[in-house]
Amino acid sequence: MTDPQRALTIGVDYGTLSGRAVVVRVHDGAELGTGVHEYPHAVMDHTLTAGPASETGSPVHLPPEWALQVPQDYVDVLKVAVPAAIAQAQADHGIDVADIVGIGTDFTACTMVPTTTDGTPLCELDGFGDRPHAYVKLWKHHAAQGQADRINELAHARGESWISRYGGLISSEWEFAKGLQILEEDREVYDRIDHWVEAADWIVWQLGGAYVRNACTAGYKGIYQDGEYPSEDFLAALNPDFRSFVADKVEHEIGQLGAVAGHLTAEAAAWTGLPEGIAVAVGNVDAHVCAPAANAVEPGQMTAIMGTSTCHVMNGEELHEVPGMCGVVDGGIVEGLWGYEAGQSGVGDIFGWFVNGSVPPAYVESAEAEGVSVHQYLTDLAAQQEIGEHGLVALDWHSGNRSVLVDHELSGTVVGQTLATRPEDTYRALLEATAFGTRTIVETFRDAGVPVTELVVAGGLLKNRLLMQIYADVTRLPLSTIASDQGPALGSAIHAAVAAGAYPDVRTAAQVMGKRTVAAYTPIEENAVRYDALFAEYTALHDYFGRGANEVMHRLKAMRREAKAARVASATEVTA
Amino acid sequence: MTDPQRALTIGVDYGTLSGRAVVVRVHDGAELGTGVHEYPHAVMDHTLTAGPASETGSPVHLPPEWALQVPQDYVDVLKVAVPAAIAQAQADHGIDVADIVGIGTDFTACTMVPTTTDGTPLCELDGFGDRPHAYVKLWKHHAAQGQADRINELAHARGESWISRYGGLISSEWEFAKGLQILEEDREVYDRIDHWVEAADWIVWQLGGAYVRNACTAGYKGIYQDGEYPSEDFLAALNPDFRSFVADKVEHEIGQLGAVAGHLTAEAAAWTGLPEGIAVAVGNVDAHVCAPAANAVEPGQMTAIMGTSTCHVMNGEELHEVPGMCGVVDGGIVEGLWGYEAGQSGVGDIFGWFVNGSVPPAYVESAEAEGVSVHQYLTDLAAQQEIGEHGLVALDWHSGNRSVLVDHELSGTVVGQTLATRPEDTYRALLEATAFGTRTIVETFRDAGVPVTELVVAGGLLKNRLLMQIYADVTRLPLSTIASDQGPALGSAIHAAVAAGAYPDVRTAAQVMGKRTVAAYTPIEENAVRYDALFAEYTALHDYFGRGANEVMHRLKAMRREAKAARVASATEVTA
Repeated sequence: MTDPQRALTIGVDYGTLSGRAVVVRVHDGAELGTGVHEYPHAVMDHTLTAGPASETGSPVHLPPEWALQVPQDYVDVLKVAVPAAIAQAQADHGIDVADIVGIGTDFTACTMVPTTTDGTPLCELDGFGDRPHAYVKLWKHHAAQGQADRINELAHARGESWISRYGGLISSEWEFAKGLQILEEDREVYDRIDHWVEAADWIVWQLGGAYVRNACTAGYKGIYQDGEYPSEDFLAALNPDFRSFVADKVEHEIGQLGAVAGHLTAEAAAWTGLPEGIAVAVGNVDAHVCAPAANAVEPGQMTAIMGTSTCHVMNGEELHEVPGMCGVVDGGIVEGLWGYEAGQSGVGDIFGWFVNGSVPPAYVESAEAEGVSVHQYLTDLAAQQEIGEHGLVALDWHSGNRSVLVDHELSGTVVGQTLATRPEDTYRALLEATAFGTRTIVETFRDAGVPVTELVVAGGLLKNRLLMQIYADVTRLPLSTIASDQGPALGSAIHAAVAAGAYPDVRTAAQVMGKRTVAAYTPIEENAVRYDALFAEYTALHDYFGRGANEVMHRLKAMRREAKAARVASATEVTA
Repeated sequence: MTDPQRALTIGVDYGTLSGRAVVVRVHDGAELGTGVHEYPHAVMDHTLTAGPASETGSPVHLPPEWALQVPQDYVDVLKVAVPAAIAQAQADHGIDVADIVGIGTDFTACTMVPTTTDGTPLCELDGFGDRPHAYVKLWKHHAAQGQADRINELAHARGESWISRYGGLISSEWEFAKGLQILEEDREVYDRIDHWVEAADWIVWQLGGAYVRNACTAGYKGIYQDGEYPSEDFLAALNPDFRSFVADKVEHEIGQLGAVAGHLTAEAAAWTGLPEGIAVAVGNVDAHVCAPAANAVEPGQMTAIMGTSTCHVMNGEELHEVPGMCGVVDGGIVEGLWGYEAGQSGVGDIFGWFVNGSVPPAYVESAEAEGVSVHQYLTDLAAQQEIGEHGLVALDWHSGNRSVLVDHELSGTVVGQTLATRPEDTYRALLEATAFGTRTIVETFRDAGVPVTELVVAGGLLKNRLLMQIYADVTRLPLSTIASDQGPALGSAIHAAVAAGAYPDVRTAAQVMGKRTVAAYTPIEENAVRYDALFAEYTALHDYFGRGANEVMHRLKAMRREAKAARVASATEVTA
């Protein structure tokens, strides 16, 4: 084995639009080189830009809410981003490729690949290139909502024990809803599926030559609880032909996080330039690997990965059922602890929506003149206010509410606007609303017996200092920030180090290789007191709109759907 | 007397920023010439731009919520706008000034002038030019809110019978609150006041040489009901020194609308170029004169004057107490009927606020490229939608709610926003919200025994065809529009014709000289049904936020005031 002081691992983070590789030194977590590759096909959400028809100029159109990807794009990341990271580490730090002892990966989830027995994606088979259902269903493919609704209704009706492990709701993004959609919409594709594979596991399969289901996505997305999947009776009640879905396409060997899934094949070694035979770690999820990357895997440390949305992950010693959580999985974050997950469906994308669609020209011009982004410009203005000065309180549900209400039909609102309300006022109210959303999650965990003692922030939004202080003040928690720009990739490299045997487990590796600035922000008591008052208003509105007192948001969404359908119908009439 | 076919009158409309004169033919209401004059001092709301100190470059600063004007600016309208209107009528129609038989005026209300016994405004006296309280308090001077609150509290505590005539609330804009503010803030000015005069009556005094209180503002703004003002006991309970306020400064001869207040003085004839001695009509209010201008003074015809805010006026045969109305006054619109008034504090100014502060550069550029206003651009986009397609419902309380909740501490909200919500969606929701506000008023009148059978729209917003159709659909009423661009000035000219004896009363004159397009818009049943559903959502939110279930809007405003005060205090500390 290589000199422990020189040992290196590779972490590869598969995001929504690109993959990023990092070379990490095992003995201290130093990041020595990075490489990025954008997926050539990005997200296919209007037309199928791959397949034979796309080359004829008559691409297949996709219905609303679809989101597909091309598996070959993931392989290209191995061919481009990994060599680029190695090259940079060689140039800057003179590393020796022979010192690389393992590779780990993380992926968006739940992103699903339908494959044959040998892992070939169906879209690569002859005759399947123009079949949308033969492609990868990206996490944000939301066209299986009808199937998800039926799964949830039936689970509650039958009193399935597993439903409470998911806060009472199985998402349309997950394995069963997406699988059932294929069965019901393209039977031929469905019948051809030998394995219904998490992309997180598919890429590991490509690297190590073996298919191993990671415990994380099996639990969080695959409804694998206490060693079992949903029963055949349950599946048959959804659709008689779905009875053997688990046995036929889902069930497979489970690998614990940080374990070895395989060893780098000759083919993958050729793609990447890495030594053949090095350890390939069991697959993982982008959000979850951030916890070890921030050295925040101990019970009480809640890691919030804050980007367009926020994912909260935290370990606990015991199993508790937290209302509205996204899931709790034994070994879901690190082996030996219960991994809890919660989420806010919209965070950064709400700020982005506001900046793109609600900020007048004068502000945009001023930001330009100052040479700052509009986000920064609004943040700077908002930072000059006293808490409560804007007179607003908002609900951060523009993308629905995941935790703790688990209701995608909710929507956003801002209360308190007057003719004196300025863009920076509403912007600040939206920042605060997301902090209130996180506090709601923290309090729900605490009330369920899973106390949170430290908030650890990863993801792009940690750069907004005003936002971070607001989160510290609102939650009254010490707020730490991950000390890496490549959180997920670093987390994957940590898993690779464990898989390679450099550390006995992920908890130990995280202590050495993970990095965070402890208590980078601490609550300011005076602010916290003021935010208590605003949070009380948020909670009252949260419960009024979110817990059944006034289901106006549901009805507005239903009206919107009907009205849109009516317009489309009348447009069709005119055309006809 | 002049040949009835040739007789002309002058109407002068005093708005917030300018005065407008129109020459009208008595026998058919034809408008033959107009002239406008902008007040040189406009609205003084930050500093006193008149008075000796303003000339030294150290003007007197005004506290928040103040709004003052300069009386001489009103006289200048007579000197500039009236001759301009005459000149145009001469040039275009060859009129003979000798055929002008009367002049009528209307004014913003409640706008108050403190004067000596001869009508000299106190601000024109030596030593008073730098005293803010010596100036005209414009209708939107809101700094007497504390006094208004005490008036209301005391009136309810004592069970004063008149309070129900005002929907339970005396406004800070009105005579008593503004008068009490002077007593308590500048005793010297207060003691010097001989007459506390509505500007509507002050300008008539300048024209005709006699002070006559018009029945309209005496009733709506001066709490003059059933021949009495609030009692001395009541006033003394507010402040012992306020006991004789009515006797000392308010009480005066009342003139009915359409009656003669005086005859044009030689001085006023010189200012205006009009024949000395012609009839000067009793003063009136800008909104109220629109009803005869639109020939809409019969019971059931509700005239909505829609501009930055909306004022609703309607006559009824009987006295009913309508919850949340602004006032009901015997002869308040035309002699012999009960005149009802209601209002929406914010309408056009909400749309303006949105357009100025919430529309992104791309939209502004597209509007420019199409050569239309941003309002028009958004309206055109909004018009393409089906009802309910935006998925939104808004509350139109950005300036508080006058009718029917009578609560200036309420604020605006939009419910239902998602990441797909576009500017035209929110814009349309705001248009609709104001229509829902009008429907709420219409239904409240109906439920109180004062049915509305026709909605007559005057004011700038009638040009927005989408908005008008929405109002027709939402209210399920035939919607007529005034057929004059100079509604108030025409209304004043009608009153002048009555004062000059050309017609026996305003109802008769209105039938000949007033103009409206009857049922220019009619409800489309399919739209009305869809709006019923949205209106139900509006009503639920209206009652939740407005009737005490959740007083979050009040608390947010209180927090805002405290936070602003805290910031000012801490800024002062830093300076000191």
